[in-house]
Amino acid sequence: MLKNILILGAGKSSFYLINYLLSQAEQNQWHITVGDLDLRQAEKKINNHPCGTAIRFDIYREKDRQENIDTADIVVSLLPPPFHILVAQACLDANAHLVTASYLTDETRALDAAFKAKNLLFMGEIGLDPGIDHLAIMEILDRLREKNYKIRSVHSHTGALIAPECDTNPWHYKFSWAPMNVVTAGQGVSQYLDNNTLKRIPYQRLFDSCLHRNVEGVGDIEIYANRNSLAYIKLYSLEGVDSLLRGTIRWADYCEAWQALVTLGLTDNSYKIDCTDLRIGDWVKSYVPTEFLQEDVHLDLAVADFLGLPLSHKVIYQLKWLGLFSDDKIPTTHATASPAEILCAILSEKWVLQPNDKDFILMLHEIIYETEEGKYLLQSSMNCIGEDSEHTAIAKTVGLPCGIFVKLLANNEISLRGVHAPVSAEVYKPVLAELAEYGISFSENIAPTEFI
Amino acid sequence: MLKNILILGAGKSSFYLINYLLSQAEQNQWHITVGDLDLRQAEKKINNHPCGTAIRFDIYREKDRQENIDTADIVVSLLPPPFHILVAQACLDANAHLVTASYLTDETRALDAAFKAKNLLFMGEIGLDPGIDHLAIMEILDRLREKNYKIRSVHSHTGALIAPECDTNPWHYKFSWAPMNVVTAGQGVSQYLDNNTLKRIPYQRLFDSCLHRNVEGVGDIEIYANRNSLAYIKLYSLEGVDSLLRGTIRWADYCEAWQALVTLGLTDNSYKIDCTDLRIGDWVKSYVPTEFLQEDVHLDLAVADFLGLPLSHKVIYQLKWLGLFSDDKIPTTHATASPAEILCAILSEKWVLQPNDKDFILMLHEIIYETEEGKYLLQSSMNCIGEDSEHTAIAKTVGLPCGIFVKLLANNEISLRGVHAPVSAEVYKPVLAELAEYGISFSENIAPTEFI
Repeated sequence: MLKNILILGAGKSSFYLINYLLSQAEQNQWHITVGDLDLRQAEKKINNHPCGTAIRFDIYREKDRQENIDTADIVVSLLPPPFHILVAQACLDANAHLVTASYLTDETRALDAAFKAKNLLFMGEIGLDPGIDHLAIMEILDRLREKNYKIRSVHSHTGALIAPECDTNPWHYKFSWAPMNVVTAGQGVSQYLDNNTLKRIPYQRLFDSCLHRNVEGVGDIEIYANRNSLAYIKLYSLEGVDSLLRGTIRWADYCEAWQALVTLGLTDNSYKIDCTDLRIGDWVKSYVPTEFLQEDVHLDLAVADFLGLPLSHKVIYQLKWLGLFSDDKIPTTHATASPAEILCAILSEKWVLQPNDKDFILMLHEIIYETEEGKYLLQSSMNCIGEDSEHTAIAKTVGLPCGIFVKLLANNEISLRGVHAPVSAEVYKPVLAELAEYGISFSENIAPTEFI
Repeated sequence: MLKNILILGAGKSSFYLINYLLSQAEQNQWHITVGDLDLRQAEKKINNHPCGTAIRFDIYREKDRQENIDTADIVVSLLPPPFHILVAQACLDANAHLVTASYLTDETRALDAAFKAKNLLFMGEIGLDPGIDHLAIMEILDRLREKNYKIRSVHSHTGALIAPECDTNPWHYKFSWAPMNVVTAGQGVSQYLDNNTLKRIPYQRLFDSCLHRNVEGVGDIEIYANRNSLAYIKLYSLEGVDSLLRGTIRWADYCEAWQALVTLGLTDNSYKIDCTDLRIGDWVKSYVPTEFLQEDVHLDLAVADFLGLPLSHKVIYQLKWLGLFSDDKIPTTHATASPAEILCAILSEKWVLQPNDKDFILMLHEIIYETEEGKYLLQSSMNCIGEDSEHTAIAKTVGLPCGIFVKLLANNEISLRGVHAPVSAEVYKPVLAELAEYGISFSENIAPTEFI
């Protein structure tokens, strides 16, 4: 029987997902409908494939939701996270499964009973991070637990980076994903478990608190804590673990400079300022205390003094490279913007992924476990390099796990019902196996901890 | 003709306002109705006065709003600020003037045309700060402008403090007003004008950026920037001024210790944590980076190290005095609370205004102006001491300007219509004159700036 799969959102991140499902559509008897506010985007992605249809879809129009979700067996939502709850309600009405790569929320988790009652599945967090991280960690944990080893510590880190050969700036970063998410990353508090102690890092010192690692064959990286790691104790069944940290990876030299932006106050997204005729240097100057600006001192020196750094420090060079000490106009067309939005506009001109640039995904798991012989550190890492700025590693590593899972679900190989993240063997085994066929696989190294 | 005056809210801050209006009611032919969710509170304040009526009033009940506001000529809202918009709409429907001591907002200011069209007045910001500060500053500015002096700089600072003779703790502070407002003060960004340069201070370094002053006959104080001073350029007609700063006053030694709480992360109000069986020391410990907690070091030493202070530093003593290094249980009955709420619960046990304690209000204006002879600094200060914890200086200085203004309005001595803050001579002249009869008056000192 023909299965109808509806994909909502045909933006940049949808390429690999849609291509994967179209390529499997004929043999599996699927029809793929892609809906987007911009019909041409959807048409471009379908590219006249005989098993596909492009439609204009507006999530705010009840008619669009009803008509299209009504005929779907599985809906994949690539819409921004706040819309998932609307889509989920429509899926319940239409008896359709729902799959997203976004974080589940208290609001979406609350639909568990409703999805179960209708014998439906809402699978969230099946992208890269969250997504592949869950799959890979659960595979390792289940393997260790099967041998009755005791899990002591779990670190799980992911970064969406620029490939080293395309790294052309002193921040060693370019945007391959939503820029505002990068600019406001870490706002609020970060919480994790360190040696049986709950640790909390307020945003204002998050980037001052990063970890440093050298990853063999990859390079020097930095890791800052990613949101609330404590939530994963339950998801990973890690009650009693000593340490648990989820982190975000950047190339070395990023965090200290980003901390300078935070300390100045340039990442704040909570208030708007007037951008009319505003020069970047004057904007930055407003955050430098007056005592550092006496006697018409140059802004770079004032900022260096304020940060307690010599003028020759690399952080000052990184800020200068962004044009933060310049007389350039604020590159925003809006009359008012938040500091974070202004910074995002500046970075968006500097951290451009050029057409032939390749992005780079790095995932690193470090798990300490105890056997009768002693303690061991298991390191498992995955990296993936993009083809170009259109065919990115991030779109691939977000889209493929989602697509593969949709295939399993469409082919009745998934028995889960209710609202879930992908942590069960039924999901991680087949998805990890097929990801490996696409070159997305982990290499593992185990050593006794006394040799670390 | 009898005028009906309706006062909404009979809480602690209403004592002086209600007493003032009742005392003037008979001779002016007023009837005073006091409405509160808690009828007994309202009855206590009316105290069987022949010109008064106590009612139960629930702002959420449309019937309560309609019935009571319908018969009122003037409504005084002492409700929390978010409710003023509801009251304002009801006043428009009922053709009643509205008076509040709270800050006007974009939302309430937008009602200007509607109030004007009905020949009504919505007077906001007529309390202490905002309130007496506007009255006093405008009186000075108008006086200087009349002589064609050029205003160069305006500083306006206010503090609700503890009277020096009742100061019994190393923070030199007790709560005389809403504790959560004190705990979350300054969150967001503070903006002001300093020597023709716009300055912005992010919250994380606000209390590190305080000013220090010695006020003759009063003592050493500290001042931190209060919200967005730039908004007052227009209100005070100060276009072209070099410097403009509104500040909050504390006794000396407060800001450095408060900055330590901010740096630790204990004032954050953006997330909740589980308080079950939580000990204060363990809570504080979660904010101290692991590297300062090696080898079971005592928490006070770890915090001192983290803050870069010797263990003998007064800030560490101030934190210790609050019990932050203790094994005491978190004094909250809620299962979850934000760090700010936890801190507020701790402070509420320590910073108690004892029954016979007197609070203390200090207002300090510093205005630099230019004449043909040169530049002068005009300092104008007001202080007011409370009677006891029931009859506070803050309730007096918030309630009296509001009450006096209501009298003027009821007696048709105010011609203003629309939405206003009290900055016109029609308001500040009679209100300041009558405040002086109650002992609330300013003393002024002028000196050429070269002698400062």
